[in-house]
Amino acid sequence: MRQSNWAREVAVVGVGMSKFGAFPEQSSRDLFVEAFLELRDIIDKDFELDQIDAFYLGNFSSDQFEKQAHLAPILANWVGLSPIPAVRVEGACASGGIAIRQGALAIAAGLADVVLVGGVEKMTDLEIAEVTEALATAADTLYEIPAGFTFPGFYAAMASAYMTEFGADQKAFHQVCIKNHQNGALNPKAQYNQTIAQIMAAKKARAVQKGKPSPEWENEGSFLSDPRANPSIAWPLSLFDCSPVTDGSAVLLLTESKKAKQFTDHPLYLVGSGQASDGALNERKTLFNIPAAVTAAKHAYAMAGLKPEQIDLAEVHDCFTIAEIMASEDLGFFDRGEGWKAALDGKTRRDGPRPINTSGGLKAKGHPVGASGIGQVVELWKQLRGEAGERQVEGDPQIGLAHNVGGTGQTCVVNILERRN
Amino acid sequence: MRQSNWAREVAVVGVGMSKFGAFPEQSSRDLFVEAFLELRDIIDKDFELDQIDAFYLGNFSSDQFEKQAHLAPILANWVGLSPIPAVRVEGACASGGIAIRQGALAIAAGLADVVLVGGVEKMTDLEIAEVTEALATAADTLYEIPAGFTFPGFYAAMASAYMTEFGADQKAFHQVCIKNHQNGALNPKAQYNQTIAQIMAAKKARAVQKGKPSPEWENEGSFLSDPRANPSIAWPLSLFDCSPVTDGSAVLLLTESKKAKQFTDHPLYLVGSGQASDGALNERKTLFNIPAAVTAAKHAYAMAGLKPEQIDLAEVHDCFTIAEIMASEDLGFFDRGEGWKAALDGKTRRDGPRPINTSGGLKAKGHPVGASGIGQVVELWKQLRGEAGERQVEGDPQIGLAHNVGGTGQTCVVNILERRN
Repeated sequence: MRQSNWAREVAVVGVGMSKFGAFPEQSSRDLFVEAFLELRDIIDKDFELDQIDAFYLGNFSSDQFEKQAHLAPILANWVGLSPIPAVRVEGACASGGIAIRQGALAIAAGLADVVLVGGVEKMTDLEIAEVTEALATAADTLYEIPAGFTFPGFYAAMASAYMTEFGADQKAFHQVCIKNHQNGALNPKAQYNQTIAQIMAAKKARAVQKGKPSPEWENEGSFLSDPRANPSIAWPLSLFDCSPVTDGSAVLLLTESKKAKQFTDHPLYLVGSGQASDGALNERKTLFNIPAAVTAAKHAYAMAGLKPEQIDLAEVHDCFTIAEIMASEDLGFFDRGEGWKAALDGKTRRDGPRPINTSGGLKAKGHPVGASGIGQVVELWKQLRGEAGERQVEGDPQIGLAHNVGGTGQTCVVNILERRN
Repeated sequence: MRQSNWAREVAVVGVGMSKFGAFPEQSSRDLFVEAFLELRDIIDKDFELDQIDAFYLGNFSSDQFEKQAHLAPILANWVGLSPIPAVRVEGACASGGIAIRQGALAIAAGLADVVLVGGVEKMTDLEIAEVTEALATAADTLYEIPAGFTFPGFYAAMASAYMTEFGADQKAFHQVCIKNHQNGALNPKAQYNQTIAQIMAAKKARAVQKGKPSPEWENEGSFLSDPRANPSIAWPLSLFDCSPVTDGSAVLLLTESKKAKQFTDHPLYLVGSGQASDGALNERKTLFNIPAAVTAAKHAYAMAGLKPEQIDLAEVHDCFTIAEIMASEDLGFFDRGEGWKAALDGKTRRDGPRPINTSGGLKAKGHPVGASGIGQVVELWKQLRGEAGERQVEGDPQIGLAHNVGGTGQTCVVNILERRN
């Protein structure tokens, strides 16, 4: 399986992102325009629309969410890019990561020198039961869905397997949630830019206001352990283990590496990229990890000539808290079965040795499915260029990794980006 | 807009196709397996699954048709290809053509040496009104759909504009239909492998059987001109101007050019490829052609270093008969406004100077949306290798073109294939 001899190198020269959240007045088109306009502002140097050779869009299912398929040429037209080739790619929640790869491949192939990559999902127009049904189409309808699961259930099964195998505690999941909300609280684009402590304080205040006895949570851990505050969704996962339903869009501008400095003095280089596929959960030998992530990471590291310990920070696909812990092992940051302890020990905090999801992750930043994988790279852009403001990690990070999973792990994409100056 | 300096050349080394039709017992998975197994049989030389580096799937909306998104890794797994990267691309009815291009780009980029490209659509499980609604998501829901159109209406507007501009006659549309059914009658995989004469005779016989007076149709033309036989759908288009709703799948095996002869002694080379996008109908200056097709063709010809008159035969996107006539002009085979006369004069017949849709086209072969663009290349494979049996065109054709349109022309893909020995 040949995966890594790309004919030309690719750079990221600009990013843009809409606010993530629930926006009843905004369609996919509006969100995409918001992200695109930010990209135009962010590009350091002169750039004209007609420099863009192709457009790749990651979108899970505007078919179902907005009754609008064929979205790529529509969005390209919406920002004035017709008649360039416009391609939508879909790999469930990994659609954004795939779009980055396909955009990069178009450059590597010689088709294009400059490619716009975008991701968008407009999820909140439907009733929540309809959203759950639409998301369920990302699972295997022949094996997984008839087993009676929706997505929290699938990841609960993985969490349960993980706990059984490694003796992990739900408190580790809570720590992932607390950390990601701490990061999201410092991200003005995040859907939930509040810490769990702030959410807890607000809940206490509301109780007092209503004349009810104030709940006696001592800290964020006791808040998340209390089923009145954090009800069980699918054991062992509770409400605060789940990423939200989100509207949002994110975009990147990619160029052939040698042209990058025409657009910015500080490009990021796509030094590694890997993608892998897998069957449904019933096909897997183990449930306590995502095998496709291991394979995708292997290819990305091989292409980059890097080892896990050389990654300065990572944005990983924490659709559920357990998914972040599994990812931290699948990516080789911690040994198998050690990820939950690392989370408990704070090793993945912004100020820890292995920062993960400094953006707030899918959990706090939000999870507009087709945009999530691209939003991850927006965060790497900010962190690696030292532009992440209050949530900036220290130590002059140079290499970041984005890990994007689709379905129950039928798709995984890993992209590694490097700043060189 | 850079479009043509591909880093490596790509060849087609094998094809496979399911029967096209309505198959209540078969899912997308079944249809894909049918096509894939034929590919395995067709490959002249030894080939093992583990030689395949990546999979690209063209699919319009299994989300809506089968409640199954995220189809690419599922199909890859279904035929034993996990864990290779599996990517679904969507560009409405041009999804198949896009999949070919993306598969080819993965090879050109150096990611892959051998790529499986597939297309599938399973459309007949829904009620016909639901199918119409699902297909309507391929149009622009903000401008086109609120105007009250569904797809026959959009193409009727184009047909009406074409007739007004060029004085064309509906009889030209009928000739496209008659020709494509003549070709489809010789294609065992076609959904309608009957000539219009055969359909007419059967209808006459049924009338006689029921004791009704036999309709006095003299020939295929008078049959198609009779609204009792061929009712109007959206003037000037009647029932027999419309392609059907179809289940089906088609696959190709692509390789890096230098490896092609490991798989077959007679590969086809992808010498030209172009793709373009456009806004909705309301954005266009003219309605009597598809501007994106002109642009896509220009890029494909430029890459191939070929002129329209050097194309020996073409499979074009005849979702409606008018679409074939517009395509024959957009691709430069005939001057603007001359395509309808060429159709009337039989120039595009199998034995004419410019054979178009020798497979039967979408009209008679069927139109399983995501598979259609790939089915076109299956026909080119057969014709260019002299394996098209009763419908083989004469004169040792060497160069074929496939033209695949999405929506009302928001996407068009043109691929040109050449046999060299």
